[in-house]
Amino acid sequence: MRVIDINSDLGEGFGPYRIADDEALLSIVSSANIACGFHAGDPLIMDETVRIAVRNGVDIGAHVGFADRMGFGRRQIPMDSRELETMLLYQLGALQAIAGAHGRKVSHVSAHGALGNMSFVDPALAASLIRSYKAFDPEMIVVTLPNTEAERAARKAGMRVACLFLADRAYDDAGRLVARNVDGAVIADPKAIARRVTQAIVEGTIDTIEGNTIRTQVHSILVHSDTPKAVDLGQSIRAAVETAGFTVSGLRQHPDL
Amino acid sequence: MRVIDINSDLGEGFGPYRIADDEALLSIVSSANIACGFHAGDPLIMDETVRIAVRNGVDIGAHVGFADRMGFGRRQIPMDSRELETMLLYQLGALQAIAGAHGRKVSHVSAHGALGNMSFVDPALAASLIRSYKAFDPEMIVVTLPNTEAERAARKAGMRVACLFLADRAYDDAGRLVARNVDGAVIADPKAIARRVTQAIVEGTIDTIEGNTIRTQVHSILVHSDTPKAVDLGQSIRAAVETAGFTVSGLRQHPDL
Amino acid sequence: MRVIDINSDLGEGFGPYRIADDEALLSIVSSANIACGFHAGDPLIMDETVRIAVRNGVDIGAHVGFADRMGFGRRQIPMDSRELETMLLYQLGALQAIAGAHGRKVSHVSAHGALGNMSFVDPALAASLIRSYKAFDPEMIVVTLPNTEAERAARKAGMRVACLFLADRAYDDAGRLVARNVDGAVIADPKAIARRVTQAIVEGTIDTIEGNTIRTQVHSILVHSDTPKAVDLGQSIRAAVETAGFTVSGLRQHPDL
Amino acid sequence: MRVIDINSDLGEGFGPYRIADDEALLSIVSSANIACGFHAGDPLIMDETVRIAVRNGVDIGAHVGFADRMGFGRRQIPMDSRELETMLLYQLGALQAIAGAHGRKVSHVSAHGALGNMSFVDPALAASLIRSYKAFDPEMIVVTLPNTEAERAARKAGMRVACLFLADRAYDDAGRLVARNVDGAVIADPKAIARRVTQAIVEGTIDTIEGNTIRTQVHSILVHSDTPKAVDLGQSIRAAVETAGFTVSGLRQHPDL
Repeated sequence: MRVIDINSDLGEGFGPYRIADDEALLSIVSSANIACGFHAGDPLIMDETVRIAVRNGVDIGAHVGFADRMGFGRRQIPMDSRELETMLLYQLGALQAIAGAHGRKVSHVSAHGALGNMSFVDPALAASLIRSYKAFDPEMIVVTLPNTEAERAARKAGMRVACLFLADRAYDDAGRLVARNVDGAVIADPKAIARRVTQAIVEGTIDTIEGNTIRTQVHSILVHSDTPKAVDLGQSIRAAVETAGFTVSGLRQHPDL
Repeated sequence: MRVIDINSDLGEGFGPYRIADDEALLSIVSSANIACGFHAGDPLIMDETVRIAVRNGVDIGAHVGFADRMGFGRRQIPMDSRELETMLLYQLGALQAIAGAHGRKVSHVSAHGALGNMSFVDPALAASLIRSYKAFDPEMIVVTLPNTEAERAARKAGMRVACLFLADRAYDDAGRLVARNVDGAVIADPKAIARRVTQAIVEGTIDTIEGNTIRTQVHSILVHSDTPKAVDLGQSIRAAVETAGFTVSGLRQHPDL
Repeated sequence: MRVIDINSDLGEGFGPYRIADDEALLSIVSSANIACGFHAGDPLIMDETVRIAVRNGVDIGAHVGFADRMGFGRRQIPMDSRELETMLLYQLGALQAIAGAHGRKVSHVSAHGALGNMSFVDPALAASLIRSYKAFDPEMIVVTLPNTEAERAARKAGMRVACLFLADRAYDDAGRLVARNVDGAVIADPKAIARRVTQAIVEGTIDTIEGNTIRTQVHSILVHSDTPKAVDLGQSIRAAVETAGFTVSGLRQHPDL
Repeated sequence: MRVIDINSDLGEGFGPYRIADDEALLSIVSSANIACGFHAGDPLIMDETVRIAVRNGVDIGAHVGFADRMGFGRRQIPMDSRELETMLLYQLGALQAIAGAHGRKVSHVSAHGALGNMSFVDPALAASLIRSYKAFDPEMIVVTLPNTEAERAARKAGMRVACLFLADRAYDDAGRLVARNVDGAVIADPKAIARRVTQAIVEGTIDTIEGNTIRTQVHSILVHSDTPKAVDLGQSIRAAVETAGFTVSGLRQHPDL
């Protein structure tokens, strides 16, 4: 059986505010990365997101980030490794308690915004991040871009890694995401996105912005939740996966992890 | 073996701020009620408090409260039961993750300030509070004043209850704390406090503000941490307990619970 | 010249979040009640809202509230009068500095959510509120429901009062708003709303929920900003005002104030 | 008349927390730099600090910083110039409203922690900072280290600059503060501090860490408030100033500004 996970960053509202159509997205994805009340989210929204995820058979993951609601976790907040690690444990535990009340576990984790970006390139921060994940639960699956410091740190720590694919973002020949402000970095055409999904999971390759083709490994495809077309995009990604003969399924039972 | 727990509310700082001499108090008490980052505390302080508690063999408990740093959790924040319960789960889980990284569990829970006061008198809120405790961990010990809605709700839910005694506060004939603004409500004399401790644990009685004597049950004695004399007071309470032939020990192995 | 102000609660976003279509509403109203960063709003959003208001000739007012983003200022946060007054001064001054950088003044003030509701019925709180307004600027116009403690306190303090009319809410014979949870309390039909506006400004009367007609005074009509139809509703209110031969204008030059 | 200002960073508590003995320091200094509720402080503490300052004839200044209570404003929070400027206006206005209720004005401003440090070395940030100060009140006095980007930007903008001297910190031959982690960077001996004060104001020179003597200009001497010996240190600095024949006075009437 060939299996692909589709995940999305959900529960990113706060108090009276909402970002995405979480309920619709939770009918498309197989994994939810749920904001834990630091860069976004709050206990009520976490509970509501978990509730719908459980009902829909969607795996529950933590989307951890900096304590910066004003900047939506997109700003680097400098801190030493001890502060970082306790901050991450705090978020993981908070979500776990809410998931536990629904009879479920936090089975994967993904780092949001600036924290995620730093974990791709900063080996010390990546090691710190993974240390906190492992201290929390060594069975938890780390969802990250492959070919990054975060991936290396997770593998070195003996944790399971799910390789993430961003179907609507351009990659360069080194397998890295092209920065958003570069022309062509963001792919908007749903058909092109669907084609990239098919190619990535069937051929295991990506066409780069330089015009070459590189190999990649994909366990999970991200659906960006905070665009107006998020639900449409999710549906076309899911259709591409299923048309290619893959089963959409959360990472917990993924045969390769 | 006759056992008494001594507990204190600790980790009540935030960022650059500190309230009590936590390190000294952690050499006196057998149970720490650790603020969970809502009314006070933050991940770093929670971690530091857990670290010292573990080193000293002190039991780790959650001191849960309203998300009101400005008011230090002493103001009633109206919310429905679902918001209350997820807010409590969030705090319990956050502390559990940090305790877990030190190889320990949150073994008891106590409600802070306005939340605690409301749990004494409001049956619906008390039921909600206990529901969240039980959903988190039905083995967790509920530390509360006896003869309150919180105690009744905990017993009804089948949870273990540790009866708290406030040695520096006057009680009335109904077994309730006398409000702080009443003359004689707060007992400052360390000798009087020590005598009340001895009487409570040896005789099982309290002399009330009306001049009568009532029966009480005591599993745990609270040392208020936020007074200048907190460490001295803690030491004299501990001395009174030991002089009376009791062993000071956390609630986890308490023979009556 | 007969003049009516149309106002709306704007700038109620925070960081990445938005509530209403502020830009569209700022092309309809003559007064903006701008959230000051406590229940909602932040410096950037305040600045952006002021910028558009200035461009459109819309008067700038402060929409003050409790420091409760999670509850959107809709929960009563207990505090003494000194805390309340300094909290209000803080918000007023913050907005004034931003307005001042655009060459403008905060010319009116309106209390949001729970704070507003408390100011209608609690004479001590209303006195405290008005004391802070007057300390900030005795020339500032107080926008409030007539026939309330807030109105009485403002008049007693010698401040100018603009009487607010809520066209989409039912009133009772005593001239009070009918609670939202009562059947018929919220009027959704745009034509009925327009008729109520016309009647209120031309006849100076309101048809009550009991079926009677009472007299009222209207200086300013509120357009609720946080409904899907807010812009349409605003346009139909403005059309009703203009069709009745009134000029829509901010309160600063209102002839009766 | 030869005049020197003595200033201190005050009002740095929050809710139940306090950092310094503000009341004692307010009997020593002539200028208070009052935290504005972002890195520290809250409306009640701002009001209390202003109240005592007014009673003691101490000038009122704003101590502006990043919105980072957890990091006490000591972490760089990245933001663009528009966010920075509105954030500063917000803080200045908030304090002005509270000062205004006491019949006073915010007459000077000083940048705290990471913001202050960035303003010394980053020309674009310094320009942005000064732009917001000037937009708020072009008469306000900018208190800053001389020989920095902040000083240059303030002078270029035509604002008055008060040159700050840190008597308990070593300087290098270039007139810059030696980083705290360097041996000898912090001077603890009260007599050495008093000698440095006398030399700076009488001779206009500083002995550098390299062993040379450089010229400096001093309008105001900072008393660090958050050390256990702050009050003693303040008194010995004040004694040194008065013994040298100078009058301690706020910057508003300083003859050189």
